[in-house]
Amino acid sequence: MKKYNTSPLSGMQELLPTEQAVFDQLKNNISDVYHHYGFLSIETPIIERTDILLAKAGGDTEKQIYMVSKTAESSDSADQALRFDHTVPLARYVVEHNNDLAFPFQVTQINRNFRGERAQRGRFREFYQCDADIIGREKLPISYDAKVIACIHDALKTFNLPKMIIRISNRKVLAGFLEALGLSAKTAEISNIIDHAEKVPVEQSATDLLELGLTQEQVDQITSFMFTSGNYAEVESALKRILGDKFDAVAEGLAELKEVTHILEIKGTRNYTIDFMIIRGLDYYTGTVFETMLEDYREIGSIASGGRYENLASNFTDMKFPGVGGSIGLTRLFFVLREYNLVNMTTSNPVDYVILPITAEEHEASFQLADKLRQEGKTVDVDLSERKLSDKFNRAGKIADYAIVIGNDEVISQKFTAKNLQTGEIVEL
Amino acid sequence: MKKYNTSPLSGMQELLPTEQAVFDQLKNNISDVYHHYGFLSIETPIIERTDILLAKAGGDTEKQIYMVSKTAESSDSADQALRFDHTVPLARYVVEHNNDLAFPFQVTQINRNFRGERAQRGRFREFYQCDADIIGREKLPISYDAKVIACIHDALKTFNLPKMIIRISNRKVLAGFLEALGLSAKTAEISNIIDHAEKVPVEQSATDLLELGLTQEQVDQITSFMFTSGNYAEVESALKRILGDKFDAVAEGLAELKEVTHILEIKGTRNYTIDFMIIRGLDYYTGTVFETMLEDYREIGSIASGGRYENLASNFTDMKFPGVGGSIGLTRLFFVLREYNLVNMTTSNPVDYVILPITAEEHEASFQLADKLRQEGKTVDVDLSERKLSDKFNRAGKIADYAIVIGNDEVISQKFTAKNLQTGEIVEL
Repeated sequence: MKKYNTSPLSGMQELLPTEQAVFDQLKNNISDVYHHYGFLSIETPIIERTDILLAKAGGDTEKQIYMVSKTAESSDSADQALRFDHTVPLARYVVEHNNDLAFPFQVTQINRNFRGERAQRGRFREFYQCDADIIGREKLPISYDAKVIACIHDALKTFNLPKMIIRISNRKVLAGFLEALGLSAKTAEISNIIDHAEKVPVEQSATDLLELGLTQEQVDQITSFMFTSGNYAEVESALKRILGDKFDAVAEGLAELKEVTHILEIKGTRNYTIDFMIIRGLDYYTGTVFETMLEDYREIGSIASGGRYENLASNFTDMKFPGVGGSIGLTRLFFVLREYNLVNMTTSNPVDYVILPITAEEHEASFQLADKLRQEGKTVDVDLSERKLSDKFNRAGKIADYAIVIGNDEVISQKFTAKNLQTGEIVEL
Repeated sequence: MKKYNTSPLSGMQELLPTEQAVFDQLKNNISDVYHHYGFLSIETPIIERTDILLAKAGGDTEKQIYMVSKTAESSDSADQALRFDHTVPLARYVVEHNNDLAFPFQVTQINRNFRGERAQRGRFREFYQCDADIIGREKLPISYDAKVIACIHDALKTFNLPKMIIRISNRKVLAGFLEALGLSAKTAEISNIIDHAEKVPVEQSATDLLELGLTQEQVDQITSFMFTSGNYAEVESALKRILGDKFDAVAEGLAELKEVTHILEIKGTRNYTIDFMIIRGLDYYTGTVFETMLEDYREIGSIASGGRYENLASNFTDMKFPGVGGSIGLTRLFFVLREYNLVNMTTSNPVDYVILPITAEEHEASFQLADKLRQEGKTVDVDLSERKLSDKFNRAGKIADYAIVIGNDEVISQKFTAKNLQTGEIVEL
């Protein structure tokens, strides 16, 4: 017999059933909250035309994309590949179906994406992303940015994690700030340094900024800027202090931050902080950007993030679709939460009751009881295997909360008891 | 600007949000019933090693498989492809994790598979299959076959379809029958003719059988056999009549059919018929085979099917894992049900309430009401767009059941009314 490697391919998450039940529970929690906020589900194909996927991309994306070969029977002429995120397919979807959508279009996609990244522990090539986006037609008020932030935060609250903090910035503030300093031409390089500032010593960022040819005063100003955080009043006065009479340059971005945080306040989502160190990559976002962290586990990094993009589908159409969205990278998050013991892996057995008929004589009564319990919403397995009762109990203990043994006595009396497989306690049904 | 084709690739289902909501509802219904029967969810990767996928395959499968190119960054040496069903990955999973599984392992996979078939209306290259399987270790009692059949039937019952009929056969009966006729050597060819008998005139099947070199008596016997259907007693006496003193050859298969149908009877799943025309393909299945049809829409064909396989993972291991499973091909089924107008596409709007604050002054009250309704389990969208109220109503009508307008009066009185967007009826909240 040929020897096969039966492990999943590297970078693919594959869980045991009890682990999968926990993962699915978290996924359903997110989906429930998104739906309760009025987000509509869509599913786009996993395979897309390569030119669509790569219309905007570049850099790593192109190296990491999984190309798909057309089969002998399929006759498409287009090159095809696996999608690497939900945003590009969403842009295509919105253009394709725009006449049939109700704008603002609140949409959620909770599904798998694929990136052939370098193999690394905790990095996945196939991973779930749980996206929530709101797409406007021509215009989309800034208040929606707060809605997305609050919704994603509420979704994460269902995980019962330690204290979360939402860090919010606005790319227009950064742009205005650099304009005030006469540094607009170096936006990309400076953004990159701020983006990485948390991972290097403070002196390193300053050195990097100096190497760009900035004056010591500019370096000090940017350093002050990127370490500015707090509530709206605090960051406003900090920027006034740093920029002096050039403060107007950041007025538009600050006004947006003010509105977003005002809505978060009245919505009761108060564990946010404005934090100008938040950048979220170099292009794509144009206004609000945010990420969520666990306050006492900052080393984990962002557990959810997103922001405002002025034009979702600019590569595919002249129509303007401003949007705001956010995403929870669930596969990575699940991995990290397990590493830090922050997710309860043992609470929920996938099955409530396993019924153990002693002989085939008790099958009928077992099926009847099972259907009755199922009608009450319980999950019920009937073990029909012809094995020793001890083996059956052993199996039940691995998947269920309770076992119900049914013998002749139970059939006659129609009285059934369930044994708690953790505690041994006996409960009458 | 480059022109992009924004339609999904041919053979890919892509639904509008209201359609997606119906599809998701059907998918959740199936999943719920499977879980209530104690089936545990697993998810295997969409990408697998090609040699694993093609270990058993041949014929069409090989031509239809989507190969995946490794990316520049991923370093796997193995050839990779997209899975074309759930069974091969399940076999790999069971071998890989067998020490951690509780047998009999009741497992469900509800997910997408990929086949690059020739493009054709109603044929999909990316499609959901909703599988339920029970895998034993060394042995698996025949009673489990009935459990799978009943479970899949109960799942389909949630669709509120017209009358369903479950057609059940057993490959051991066919094998025994052909052995009794001395035709074992022609099993493949004869099975193929029976498998297609429903799609051709009766004379055609007889002609095809004659062309295999069978005697007229053998042809008559096989014709009688394949048109035999009914309850157990009926098919038993039919086979006694056809086979006479060679009846013993079908005894084992009949005993299995007797047990399966007996359990369906006591379980209350009584709309089945034993039907020897059911074959379900040429290899793979070894005992029970079944398919479900809509009695008044036979032209639709099978809407769910499955059977018993003696050895799930024989290509990958010497360990013996007998199993029984079934599957609902949901993407195709959904397409067909819509064609026949058998699925209610309009019942459920994805959103319960859309709240329409008249100005930003009413945002706070709107958020509070929304959160309150969400806590009651409702799905609530708050429309923050700065558009005319008529436009907002228009949007709400496309996605929701009710609209709630909130102006200054409502904020002061704290009395809110909801307008039914179908009937115009006003309801107090």
